[in-house]
Amino acid sequence: MAGSSFGTIFRITTWGESHGAALGVVVDGCPAGLFLNSSDIQAYLDRRKPGQTKISTPRKEADEAEILSGIFEGKTTGTPVAMLVRNTSQHSADYSEIANYYRPGHADYTFDAKYGFRDYRGGGRSSGRETIGRVAAGAVAAKLLREFGIELTAYTKSIGPVNIDMTKFEKQAILDTPTCMPDREASVLAEAYLADCMKNYDSAGGVIECVIGGVPAGLGDPVFEKLSANLSRAVMSIGAVKAVEIGDGINVALRHGSDNNDSFRMENGQITKASNHAGGILGGISDGSSIILRAYIKPTPSIFSPQETVNRQGENIEISIKGRHDPIIVPRAVVVVESMAALVLADALLLNASAKMDHLKRIYGR
Amino acid sequence: MAGSSFGTIFRITTWGESHGAALGVVVDGCPAGLFLNSSDIQAYLDRRKPGQTKISTPRKEADEAEILSGIFEGKTTGTPVAMLVRNTSQHSADYSEIANYYRPGHADYTFDAKYGFRDYRGGGRSSGRETIGRVAAGAVAAKLLREFGIELTAYTKSIGPVNIDMTKFEKQAILDTPTCMPDREASVLAEAYLADCMKNYDSAGGVIECVIGGVPAGLGDPVFEKLSANLSRAVMSIGAVKAVEIGDGINVALRHGSDNNDSFRMENGQITKASNHAGGILGGISDGSSIILRAYIKPTPSIFSPQETVNRQGENIEISIKGRHDPIIVPRAVVVVESMAALVLADALLLNASAKMDHLKRIYGR
Amino acid sequence: MAGSSFGTIFRITTWGESHGAALGVVVDGCPAGLFLNSSDIQAYLDRRKPGQTKISTPRKEADEAEILSGIFEGKTTGTPVAMLVRNTSQHSADYSEIANYYRPGHADYTFDAKYGFRDYRGGGRSSGRETIGRVAAGAVAAKLLREFGIELTAYTKSIGPVNIDMTKFEKQAILDTPTCMPDREASVLAEAYLADCMKNYDSAGGVIECVIGGVPAGLGDPVFEKLSANLSRAVMSIGAVKAVEIGDGINVALRHGSDNNDSFRMENGQITKASNHAGGILGGISDGSSIILRAYIKPTPSIFSPQETVNRQGENIEISIKGRHDPIIVPRAVVVVESMAALVLADALLLNASAKMDHLKRIYGR
Amino acid sequence: MAGSSFGTIFRITTWGESHGAALGVVVDGCPAGLFLNSSDIQAYLDRRKPGQTKISTPRKEADEAEILSGIFEGKTTGTPVAMLVRNTSQHSADYSEIANYYRPGHADYTFDAKYGFRDYRGGGRSSGRETIGRVAAGAVAAKLLREFGIELTAYTKSIGPVNIDMTKFEKQAILDTPTCMPDREASVLAEAYLADCMKNYDSAGGVIECVIGGVPAGLGDPVFEKLSANLSRAVMSIGAVKAVEIGDGINVALRHGSDNNDSFRMENGQITKASNHAGGILGGISDGSSIILRAYIKPTPSIFSPQETVNRQGENIEISIKGRHDPIIVPRAVVVVESMAALVLADALLLNASAKMDHLKRIYGR
Repeated sequence: MAGSSFGTIFRITTWGESHGAALGVVVDGCPAGLFLNSSDIQAYLDRRKPGQTKISTPRKEADEAEILSGIFEGKTTGTPVAMLVRNTSQHSADYSEIANYYRPGHADYTFDAKYGFRDYRGGGRSSGRETIGRVAAGAVAAKLLREFGIELTAYTKSIGPVNIDMTKFEKQAILDTPTCMPDREASVLAEAYLADCMKNYDSAGGVIECVIGGVPAGLGDPVFEKLSANLSRAVMSIGAVKAVEIGDGINVALRHGSDNNDSFRMENGQITKASNHAGGILGGISDGSSIILRAYIKPTPSIFSPQETVNRQGENIEISIKGRHDPIIVPRAVVVVESMAALVLADALLLNASAKMDHLKRIYGR
Repeated sequence: MAGSSFGTIFRITTWGESHGAALGVVVDGCPAGLFLNSSDIQAYLDRRKPGQTKISTPRKEADEAEILSGIFEGKTTGTPVAMLVRNTSQHSADYSEIANYYRPGHADYTFDAKYGFRDYRGGGRSSGRETIGRVAAGAVAAKLLREFGIELTAYTKSIGPVNIDMTKFEKQAILDTPTCMPDREASVLAEAYLADCMKNYDSAGGVIECVIGGVPAGLGDPVFEKLSANLSRAVMSIGAVKAVEIGDGINVALRHGSDNNDSFRMENGQITKASNHAGGILGGISDGSSIILRAYIKPTPSIFSPQETVNRQGENIEISIKGRHDPIIVPRAVVVVESMAALVLADALLLNASAKMDHLKRIYGR
Repeated sequence: MAGSSFGTIFRITTWGESHGAALGVVVDGCPAGLFLNSSDIQAYLDRRKPGQTKISTPRKEADEAEILSGIFEGKTTGTPVAMLVRNTSQHSADYSEIANYYRPGHADYTFDAKYGFRDYRGGGRSSGRETIGRVAAGAVAAKLLREFGIELTAYTKSIGPVNIDMTKFEKQAILDTPTCMPDREASVLAEAYLADCMKNYDSAGGVIECVIGGVPAGLGDPVFEKLSANLSRAVMSIGAVKAVEIGDGINVALRHGSDNNDSFRMENGQITKASNHAGGILGGISDGSSIILRAYIKPTPSIFSPQETVNRQGENIEISIKGRHDPIIVPRAVVVVESMAALVLADALLLNASAKMDHLKRIYGR
Repeated sequence: MAGSSFGTIFRITTWGESHGAALGVVVDGCPAGLFLNSSDIQAYLDRRKPGQTKISTPRKEADEAEILSGIFEGKTTGTPVAMLVRNTSQHSADYSEIANYYRPGHADYTFDAKYGFRDYRGGGRSSGRETIGRVAAGAVAAKLLREFGIELTAYTKSIGPVNIDMTKFEKQAILDTPTCMPDREASVLAEAYLADCMKNYDSAGGVIECVIGGVPAGLGDPVFEKLSANLSRAVMSIGAVKAVEIGDGINVALRHGSDNNDSFRMENGQITKASNHAGGILGGISDGSSIILRAYIKPTPSIFSPQETVNRQGENIEISIKGRHDPIIVPRAVVVVESMAALVLADALLLNASAKMDHLKRIYGR
């Protein structure tokens, strides 16, 4: 089916394979009149670039976005914003071997099972490069949200056993450290841990957290379009994510209602919550507190140590994966999580515009 | 927006409030020719009924489903199957007090923030009774899936600190125990734990697990319609769920690739996996192993001990919730999780029918 | 597939068969705060009732709508409005004969071809009674539109060769005459024409026109969500419609640009058009003039004179249809056309709320 | 809103402006395993090219399609097929004048009313060049349909008063004549008529007919997803279309049921219809006869004779449009109508794959 679109009003459609001619995205439904230029997009794309540090693949990928439509005189026109990134550094030869077997932890087998064959070059559509379209679109969504005071901050919360210490949180460190951790000390420890993994021809997992501030109460819709449900789908649709939490997440299962409920309190004439176990969402609708979500990322499945698998002829074989592979997905996925969350919030913001008569009367002047 | 529909081809639309005239669901897109009658539906609805044990509200709710359309001569006709459950035991008077304040942990405040007012009787649309439509529809989806050998089994995995022991798994116990645990011994312990909670005017949370067997490889679609993404959305859309896991879930963040990858192996001429850390989904597409997912449920927010909150006049107040409330949501949510998972799988099964030319040729005879 | 839903934000889902237990509709996405009660709905349903005049079937159908959800304290709450009409006057026995053959001009054969069997009682889902859900939903949409000054007026433009004279237009006559013509003299002629048809055991067709006034410029979206495109789909989805026109419709094919273009002119400080060949839509977006559309309705296919057809055994046979059938569909379809147009406009009104930054700033206060 | 997508499973998203960098389309949901290359696409695009004859604009547009994704080893992979056409021959200077006023018959005013400003270069998104994406996608749909024996043939039926004579129908003439008429004699007359129009600085309209043969009975879905409804929307979404007919179209309004009904007859063991007034669709579902539809196209609104209009300052002015404009839209729209019809049929073919249990059993082997 058509599985490459996301969102109802603010709706994106991504396309492209790891080793095809290009990858891209069409952002449809962005309101007219948003100031937007290619540096807004590039700032986001640069955050997912490989080849920048010791702990990521030495591939050099320019990943420069070209905006092809939907902008006029520096502003969105209300029509689709199409963006494209050419593939320049792909060496299909590297991948010829994997055409014939199924890499453990990858989608090789399931694509073959579904479609009868697959584009085996670099994972094709199941490659991490697929997220380029998400990030370019996420940059647009984030720009839109900032116009209404909504800010997203995603970062690495842990890598293997190394956790950040929130008392050492420094926002700039997210962009500076190779781990995208906001705690520089934890980042150093995590780098050491990853160096060890690489020495053992192995890989590691971790956790990404995203905090969304400035969200007005009232975004999200009941039942199936809950903000929590759409955020979960958004984040779980990222390749290596295996769990999603909102607010206190799995910990709520061990709580009592008396501990877990957040009391409402008046503060400066505003309704606020005395705590935020709920992670900013009640009944699927934003409550005005920060939205907090977490994504649990599996270790990179491409490892250099030998593994058992089967080939297309149905024989048991042993393989050793070669090529260029990050020992961890987490740092490069931080901006992807942020982008997906931005897309959900942007759509919810637009959908909420027609939620009540009062909103419509402000627009249509009655 | 229209937030009460779910699914693309196998598509449901639910409606109804806790204390309205009725609740119901329209199941559109069910293939013609499925044998279906009201006892198929009732069997599922009975599993979410309250008033059956000590640990649930003493409300008596008959919750009898009436099928209004879409069935002829015992089979689905391909047109919408509409089902309705009348509300019979609701006492709106019980809820008059809560009209004026915001219960912590509930959607009272967010509905008011979104819509300007709310149906405050028993939570209105944000009540747990909203799930009646999901379960009636889930029964249809599960019946359809069984025709193709796909079986869903959901159960309570833990209540507060009490976990089931999988070596004591007994399927019948899920239906027999008041906790919906498949381990009768754990269930007794959990009941004692809940009795304690009730004595303290408090509530408890827990974990629901759902295992889906017999799934052919190839269901689900790349990128945004991944089976994992849609299952996450489906489960997170259930009122009290705060975290969702697929396969090993949060634990993958601490693993190495060498531990976490599942080797492919030939077994009886079939491709299988030597382990199932992935929970039956690779790249968002089913891999032929059992699909495993978990939902983390928060403790019932309605507790009888005093709580602080604010009222609609913007004053800080202390409240004591009265009425009939389960000390735990988990047992009654088991069939809801199973239903939501069934809806996702049914839709994926139908969508996959047009995924490749080979499928179409089998149908259109070329 | 799920074909019984219509609309993006203001979204309806209809269900029900001619001789099932009931028919109904779920209206999801109606903004909160619209005053609505069952008499708003009944006024519309009464306009499609049969058994009211000589030229329609003598069936007595009460067709009373019950509102089951989504209203609280007289206003819509933002959650789904479910409505139901019980079938009371259906005699399945009347239809037993048609189970075995395919009535010309009906959907009997195509339903069998698609689904393998069909609910043959009174046409099942392909019956004209299917429109009950459309009309109940259309009543809600029309009420919403009136709040913003948008008024729809549909009427019979012609029956067979009898056309109305627009200089004799009288709005009240639409409700008073059995033909729903706004010209009382033409209505008398049309009734005579229909009496003749009935005498010949035959049926007649006609044209319905719908004028939508008070539409602000700017509704509708470019490319595939053009107002004209969605109106066409809406109207062509009504059973017996075989052609749809916007504005001057088929006549434009014979025009020159110099005749067909509408000049823009300033009038009282407003941009207006000196003529309205375009029917109020330019580039798929409303231009502030009245929207004008027309539906061409085929003659009732159920006629009492003998016809040739085939039966399910694949034999050529001759049949004579019995039972109660209107000699013309047009008058009862007038309110259906109006309802479908109202649904399209309501959805466009809501979608336009997020079309530009300026609108969002009015809502979100920046 | 997101208005640039069309279709449910076979789903396209178009983007691009007349004078932007490029135009394109993403085709998502095409089944895996369809042989496809760029010459399949180019053959369709070439049919909408300008600069080919006396009766079209002398612009030279290469309009070469580049396929960027979704094809591997000559076959579709099941992932999105992205295609792009660079704009090469656009001279924005030509259009600077129209920035300030509203051309009659164009979308200038309605875009301004909706979005607050517009990309005025060559009509921006409302330009006829927008159809490039539709045609590139239509080529894919038509290739898919041919695999199942479904063939589409669109042609010019009339230009102004000049009608084709079906007894002189010659398929090759559609591609050979500058009018896309299948009757070479009528084409000569039409060319003379157009030459006259041009001499008078005026333009002309006409009618396009599309016949779809080889359609199996059973495609399309009841109620809102009727094949007729979706074809109407598809065709009416093309810029200059003002009316759509299925089968006998507007003529049915003047008929009796006894004339208009098509008798079913057995022929060579197959159910057929003795006539085809219905145009191949009954109850919204294909009946196995050829599907016949017609689009009525208005005269090109850009004419060289003087016209009255208003400017952005709200002043009445007189204008004279300059530049390069076809005197008629019809011949270049023929392939657009065919493409839109192909998209509807392709989607219906895929959706029907899951319409009944029998189909699913053929796929899933039970």
